[in-house]
Amino acid sequence: MSGAATNMRVKLPAICLVLQIILIILFGVLVQYNHDTDAKLWHKGNQSDYENDFYYRYPSFQDVHVMIFVGFGFLMTFLQRYGFSSVGFNFLIAAFSLQWATLMQGFFHGFHGGKIHIGVESMINADFCTGAVLISFGAVLGKTSPVQLLVMAMFEVTLFAINEYILLSLLGARDAGGSMTIHTFGAYFGLVVTRVLYRPNLDKSKQRNSSVYHSDLFAMIGTLFLWMFWPSFNSAVTAHGDDQHRTAMNTYYSLASCTLATFGMSALTAHDGKLDMVHIQNAALAGGVAIGTAGEMMLTPFGSMIVGFLAGIISVLGFKYLSPILESKLKIQDTCGVHNLHGMPGILGAIVGAVTAAAATTEIYGGGMKDVFPDVASNSRDSFKQGGLQAISLLVTLGMALVGGLIVGFILKLPIYGSPPDTICYEDSIYWEVPGEEETHDDQLTTVRAEEVEKLNS
Amino acid sequence: MSGAATNMRVKLPAICLVLQIILIILFGVLVQYNHDTDAKLWHKGNQSDYENDFYYRYPSFQDVHVMIFVGFGFLMTFLQRYGFSSVGFNFLIAAFSLQWATLMQGFFHGFHGGKIHIGVESMINADFCTGAVLISFGAVLGKTSPVQLLVMAMFEVTLFAINEYILLSLLGARDAGGSMTIHTFGAYFGLVVTRVLYRPNLDKSKQRNSSVYHSDLFAMIGTLFLWMFWPSFNSAVTAHGDDQHRTAMNTYYSLASCTLATFGMSALTAHDGKLDMVHIQNAALAGGVAIGTAGEMMLTPFGSMIVGFLAGIISVLGFKYLSPILESKLKIQDTCGVHNLHGMPGILGAIVGAVTAAAATTEIYGGGMKDVFPDVASNSRDSFKQGGLQAISLLVTLGMALVGGLIVGFILKLPIYGSPPDTICYEDSIYWEVPGEEETHDDQLTTVRAEEVEKLNS
Amino acid sequence: MSGAATNMRVKLPAICLVLQIILIILFGVLVQYNHDTDAKLWHKGNQSDYENDFYYRYPSFQDVHVMIFVGFGFLMTFLQRYGFSSVGFNFLIAAFSLQWATLMQGFFHGFHGGKIHIGVESMINADFCTGAVLISFGAVLGKTSPVQLLVMAMFEVTLFAINEYILLSLLGARDAGGSMTIHTFGAYFGLVVTRVLYRPNLDKSKQRNSSVYHSDLFAMIGTLFLWMFWPSFNSAVTAHGDDQHRTAMNTYYSLASCTLATFGMSALTAHDGKLDMVHIQNAALAGGVAIGTAGEMMLTPFGSMIVGFLAGIISVLGFKYLSPILESKLKIQDTCGVHNLHGMPGILGAIVGAVTAAAATTEIYGGGMKDVFPDVASNSRDSFKQGGLQAISLLVTLGMALVGGLIVGFILKLPIYGSPPDTICYEDSIYWEVPGEEETHDDQLTTVRAEEVEKLNS
Repeated sequence: MSGAATNMRVKLPAICLVLQIILIILFGVLVQYNHDTDAKLWHKGNQSDYENDFYYRYPSFQDVHVMIFVGFGFLMTFLQRYGFSSVGFNFLIAAFSLQWATLMQGFFHGFHGGKIHIGVESMINADFCTGAVLISFGAVLGKTSPVQLLVMAMFEVTLFAINEYILLSLLGARDAGGSMTIHTFGAYFGLVVTRVLYRPNLDKSKQRNSSVYHSDLFAMIGTLFLWMFWPSFNSAVTAHGDDQHRTAMNTYYSLASCTLATFGMSALTAHDGKLDMVHIQNAALAGGVAIGTAGEMMLTPFGSMIVGFLAGIISVLGFKYLSPILESKLKIQDTCGVHNLHGMPGILGAIVGAVTAAAATTEIYGGGMKDVFPDVASNSRDSFKQGGLQAISLLVTLGMALVGGLIVGFILKLPIYGSPPDTICYEDSIYWEVPGEEETHDDQLTTVRAEEVEKLNS
Repeated sequence: MSGAATNMRVKLPAICLVLQIILIILFGVLVQYNHDTDAKLWHKGNQSDYENDFYYRYPSFQDVHVMIFVGFGFLMTFLQRYGFSSVGFNFLIAAFSLQWATLMQGFFHGFHGGKIHIGVESMINADFCTGAVLISFGAVLGKTSPVQLLVMAMFEVTLFAINEYILLSLLGARDAGGSMTIHTFGAYFGLVVTRVLYRPNLDKSKQRNSSVYHSDLFAMIGTLFLWMFWPSFNSAVTAHGDDQHRTAMNTYYSLASCTLATFGMSALTAHDGKLDMVHIQNAALAGGVAIGTAGEMMLTPFGSMIVGFLAGIISVLGFKYLSPILESKLKIQDTCGVHNLHGMPGILGAIVGAVTAAAATTEIYGGGMKDVFPDVASNSRDSFKQGGLQAISLLVTLGMALVGGLIVGFILKLPIYGSPPDTICYEDSIYWEVPGEEETHDDQLTTVRAEEVEKLNS
Repeated sequence: MSGAATNMRVKLPAICLVLQIILIILFGVLVQYNHDTDAKLWHKGNQSDYENDFYYRYPSFQDVHVMIFVGFGFLMTFLQRYGFSSVGFNFLIAAFSLQWATLMQGFFHGFHGGKIHIGVESMINADFCTGAVLISFGAVLGKTSPVQLLVMAMFEVTLFAINEYILLSLLGARDAGGSMTIHTFGAYFGLVVTRVLYRPNLDKSKQRNSSVYHSDLFAMIGTLFLWMFWPSFNSAVTAHGDDQHRTAMNTYYSLASCTLATFGMSALTAHDGKLDMVHIQNAALAGGVAIGTAGEMMLTPFGSMIVGFLAGIISVLGFKYLSPILESKLKIQDTCGVHNLHGMPGILGAIVGAVTAAAATTEIYGGGMKDVFPDVASNSRDSFKQGGLQAISLLVTLGMALVGGLIVGFILKLPIYGSPPDTICYEDSIYWEVPGEEETHDDQLTTVRAEEVEKLNS
């Protein structure tokens, strides 16, 4: 990997502008307003304005939107010198992915008469798909160029849409909050990619692969917005009425329970009984991941709290004991620990979903069965089979993520994307104009850094 | 207080995990979905989905949620070396309190056939109760261990629920935004606790009891999210329709008016006419506190602006002149100045509520009387009596807070919680793994700090 | 301009408290609850609670509110030593402007029987008007005193309301997201003001007119909240139903497209192919500005993406090539580059709106024509004329902004407001008590700074 390749003067403009122009053309050819956004269609019916799907979903959409851009973006600012890239590349690849996802998901859902019909629900789904890409971004954070990330996003969005189609349409699985489609898929896809991109000499950059005091506070902005809005995330596309209401509530209690488990486990496992910010920033969110599939089901707050509790424990243990092993034995350099926040809790969520689905009865769900398990309500399958298909969906997802990640990983290994050399990973100044520190402060340091980059680029 | 006690290796995991397991068991035994969240019950009726309470209250709930976790959490990051604890312990005790509050409030409201029925309104009320605990946290900030805070939260939530029950159910008082139940109660409870926990040698930590430039900016994140979402806070549980609408609007104007009063008073009282960040961060919010009771009433924007104006003035004067006296004469070490932001403005709000209630007439309220003052609308009391009961409610609240704070303060004084020694208050590194500053930057400083902690812990 | 004048001890309290008292009196005389916020009026009808305008608009209002206080406030924290003033003065002038705007806009709209009727829609409009003032603030950032800013706000709000009345009521133009009324007006007004306030010796402060690492991250908080909530901004006051839905969606795609264009252009034009934070923080938002007028029209996502793409390109080019020329040749010292973010994209938005309006047909809009173009639907004008009036509206706006900015600029040039001397612009410590850096850190620097201010003030 030649250092000079990190110059983005040609590559980044080329890919950004070309991709955007292609997107515009495809939208021109393929995309249409749906019934609820089209002036003529909406006014044809006699519907009252308050029945427009906008009012059911837009507040949730906005919360999801905040999670994608501020939540994921700031969560990754914990690194001392990678805040611009964390927030900035998160911004770039999310802005790309949501457009590309509109098309890819549109091919599989909402394709009518050769046109993709879009509205607030497709916007939420596009943001969801983007979430999976950002999870994978977490695994490769600090070691990839923006061009590489855009290429990864392009492939991952496509595979996401295929996997989602298999799960939700072909297998009839339920996964409103995306424990499988978003978290499991995004995490294992990213882990395989980072495995393929393994850098044996990455410890040359290890002094930068850590936080400083204020970067940890910035990261907490991300953590908290993810935590607070997760009830909206899981309920954003569930059925109107009791479903959205119940899903939000289950998620609320799962996360609260997970947070206590996280603090407890962090003090138990960390050095000298001191809390570790990495755990608080990440593991406290595992309760949202693990309730992603079963959140809309009649899991009860009691069940939700158990799920959150387990997720928090698993996640902290993963950060403490599993991540070092993954790195040393399996050569998986997982910068943000997405295996602990999204991978294992995602699998837990899929299993909980399968079990809860298998236990569904008309006695419990009543007339609401048709919203949560339409195939069971219509007698085209029984609850037990629904549970089995949920389990199969997890396996499909893992397979898609592993195979997809492998292929895409090798594509991303090509030495053409300008990824940083091993000695200057986790460093903003390689892709950004970085300002000096305050005035007279440490010009020296900045100068040293700039020189280092120069040298390596030549 | 032995320094070694600050090691949280056993205590914090024990209390977190045990409390969470107890919560899970109690939820399993006692808690049920309410009508609007239960699949079977909701689908039994013929209600339209848009009538589900979720759509009336969930956007407000999310705003309240942001206030609790980001608002309170970041407001307290103003201290230079206590950001992890401010945001982190805020996170921990809020996650615990909202679960415990669901149970405690559930015993007094929403208890049907031995079960607590929950939905979005109970979630908002749980967050409200949590707010009171976080206000008390502000009074003891920097001087307490996380175990101590959890114990405080356990007792305070219980007392909050009792006080709320006396006010809203027994006395039939109105207090939608919690001037009395949340702010007055939380502030005076916390002030008594901090009085009991008085530390005569706290000035040994005084160099850390101040802000730095960026910590003040982080605190403004908290301030602004509290300020912006306060209209949602006060209107979150008022009656549907005009009530929610009016409450939000009154709060909006009260806060705007308060902000101008705060800037004016800050420049007037501070050194050399320079603005003081402490005032802007805190006093500008007093307008939200003081409109908490009367916000849903026909106070008019005019009345709301007067209330906000007075609240801002009182609050700045409190920070400037009263807080030093409270500390030197009454030995009340109120870290965040909650007396100025929540205490006095809370009392003001209670009084304004009592007067506004006493002045209510059918001429003004029309058919809306039944929403705002149901007891007056049903002729079971007249407006004047309603006002009197509002005033009594304030006295009950103060009594509960003072007596409760006294008892809980002595419980928290036991030398078993691992609270920090006087010399290392306001310091994250006592409970957290704190990263060094940037690279070569000031390793020396960090080393010195670590050594200091070591020494004091031995 | 005498240095001693920067002491705010008398001026700032006087203007804040007097203005607030005047506002209170005027609200007392003039302002009333509207139908949806008044207890009696609302309960007179037989409307269902879900038809209250609150539920259609309050979530959007809250998003707009976040944009005004956190979005604009933090966007301007990019300067290394002006964070307190950016967030703080933004807070102050916004709190003033929204009250004053309620009155000024109320005179022209919603004035019934001598009373101004207010509700959630007027709150949104007041926040919108405030947005224009904050845009102008961006042009003069760092070079003005808070008193000067309040005086500017007082005049600008008044002129805004007049211009808005001419456009929306007299000319019947459509401008839901304010490409003309908010962005074009605010930008050119501010640019003329900063031209009149031209400081030939401003380069004496140039070492402070730049960012540091963490100030750029704080600014990204502002950028992202603006970006995420812009769909709510543009749709906040459009007609219920498909209109709000469509506007939000068009804005979403315009912004995504703009973001890719911004990253591409930034790498293309910046030094060594490195991305420039100024572009990312600002130009990525131009897509929201440029879709402000046409967003509610049947522009299609395709059209929206083209608009966003062009806006991003224009904006980056403006920052790179035009701003330096404006400063050197036209003596326009535009601190935040509002010409690139609000000025040119605002004009683009007005033109797109005019063209889209001229192309409107009943075939496309159907029964929705009456919501988007009521004058065309009622046959009082044809689409082509609507387009023409949109174009005239742009010219009127530019005229109002230029003439208004000129007059107000000269008013603000009077040496009575305590604006900072040329040598200490972009510096918080002139108006704020600024804490030292962390402990032992750089007391020296702070001392030097304080002395510098002393010296210049004497």
